[in-house]
Amino acid sequence: MKFCSECAQPISKLVPAGDNRQRYVCVSCDTIHYQNPRIVAGTLPTYKGQVLLCKRAIEPRKGYWTLPAGFMENGETTEEGALRETLEEANARIQNPHLYTMIAVPHISQVHIFFQGELADLDFSCGPESLEVRLFDEVDIPWQELAFPTTSTTLRRFYSDRQQTIDNKQSPSLPTHVFDIPEKDKLKL
Amino acid sequence: MKFCSECAQPISKLVPAGDNRQRYVCVSCDTIHYQNPRIVAGTLPTYKGQVLLCKRAIEPRKGYWTLPAGFMENGETTEEGALRETLEEANARIQNPHLYTMIAVPHISQVHIFFQGELADLDFSCGPESLEVRLFDEVDIPWQELAFPTTSTTLRRFYSDRQQTIDNKQSPSLPTHVFDIPEKDKLKL
Repeated sequence: MKFCSECAQPISKLVPAGDNRQRYVCVSCDTIHYQNPRIVAGTLPTYKGQVLLCKRAIEPRKGYWTLPAGFMENGETTEEGALRETLEEANARIQNPHLYTMIAVPHISQVHIFFQGELADLDFSCGPESLEVRLFDEVDIPWQELAFPTTSTTLRRFYSDRQQTIDNKQSPSLPTHVFDIPEKDKLKL
Repeated sequence: MKFCSECAQPISKLVPAGDNRQRYVCVSCDTIHYQNPRIVAGTLPTYKGQVLLCKRAIEPRKGYWTLPAGFMENGETTEEGALRETLEEANARIQNPHLYTMIAVPHISQVHIFFQGELADLDFSCGPESLEVRLFDEVDIPWQELAFPTTSTTLRRFYSDRQQTIDNKQSPSLPTHVFDIPEKDKLKL
């Protein structure tokens, strides 16, 4: 940020009165330009223990596999954003989505939120940002070719939770998990 | 937004190539200025069935009661943001925070996230944005003087969950809830 978006004068970086951190401030028109974390909303679409992944057609991490997800838009809910991204990237629909993982990624000021749900049908296909969309059995998941740590964290947790419900003969309802992605994983994001 | 924050030229509102919604775009330097929802992070501090509320010293809703919460900052996690706001507004600390409610408020493009936890001690007091900070029993909660729908939604859910654990003689572990605040409640936000 170099210029004020309200009056076009050069911007300053300073701690405003009554605040305790540096902000982008316009000393001409007194506007404070706050910057805040962004939400990436997505889904973990499942089908009888298989998971749906998309091969990215765009940077960053072009050619790597990811869960369908993207930046949440103004005017929508987290769930609406997650379902919209799933439709845009994989032409897929899921049933009864529930909040599965919320993962803070503080070194890039993002929060990734994934809703899990069974696919409503198997009529999925590539959206413009995907090179390939397919279902994977656990043994076939390309762990070394996953795009982001939040993808692998969510997948690992899903198979861990699933094993536990099988071992304990519980109903397959999944809990909600809240994580952070530590700084050491930042190269993968 | 009237001017480009990168080159100070007047901004346009148009649908960029490959996109499907209007954005603020600079046709001089080709920068697209995306706008995304902001996260409000806060806590539901509890103490043996009582809840801690803050009377707001600032607008909006000055003089009304709220849970400690505020805009999440770049570089922090949702939990860090929630605990920071609790310290800033009420000089209070909570133990073992867990994600309790995530409430989308799409008509103001916000997502409110509350972590519940028992107070670590009773040594709380007013921060600069609070006129008063105190614990309330359920019967004393000023329902008509609560600042925001996300405050009342979170409190009502807490007492409903709590009653259920008492009725069922369960351990008092609370689930995670995901809500939206409908348009009709927007005047209260």
